Amino acid sequence: MAVRKFSVSDASFEHVPGLDGDVFTGNLVDQHHGSPITIGYGRYGPEVSIDITLAVDDVMVVLKGQLSVSGEDGIVVTAGPGEIVHMPKGDKVTIRAHEDGAITAYVTYPHWQEAESG
Amino acid sequence: MAVRKFSVSDASFEHVPGLDGDVFTGNLVDQHHGSPITIGYGRYGPEVSIDITLAVDDVMVVLKGQLSVSGEDGIVVTAGPGEIVHMPKGDKVTIRAHEDGAITAYVTYPHWQEAESG
Repeated sequence: MAVRKFSVSDASFEHVPGLDGDVFTGNLVDQHHGSPITIGYGRYGPEVSIDITLAVDDVMVVLKGQLSVSGEDGIVVTAGPGEIVHMPKGDKVTIRAHEDGAITAYVTYPHWQEAESG
Repeated sequence: MAVRKFSVSDASFEHVPGLDGDVFTGNLVDQHHGSPITIGYGRYGPEVSIDITLAVDDVMVVLKGQLSVSGEDGIVVTAGPGEIVHMPKGDKVTIRAHEDGAITAYVTYPHWQEAESG
């Protein structure tokens, strides 16, 4: 495999199946590419809130806007541009975008689409 | 494990052993934390250039400045703020920072420190 570079304009954003709300993901590297990780960009609409149980370790780097993430322990973290949120596998979390929505870069191990469909 | 948030100010930057040049890494999640991935921030001085063979899959999200990465095939990719570079395990690459240096967020699978020392 070769070194690859991605911009947000390379992502084909798709609505995440099973999630209500304005949340879109665009995988750029995933189970079809021979690496153990999935890489992509995420897009959240203003004030959208989603509840998920993480089937994989998920790292989000916030590029625009702000996201607040709360775990089962009730602690809420809020991340803006340049900040990283790590959501470990197995955690139940609520992700909420602030008024301007958010754009993220994400990396998951293993592949989130396989883990969620399995 | 719980959800965690990191800012670049949380990183304790260390000079990368064995690398000549002004390149620093600050792991925030690694082999000491029970997740399969390493997460951190990287800092590159102006015009620094390093040659590495990747012991792991390495994803860099450029937050400030610009980096050019060339692989064995001679193709050079250049990434700026908000762009992602994926360097697959086993690749030999040259990473060069431009005149303003660069700050990155990185995720590796598996843990790069363990892979490089093993």
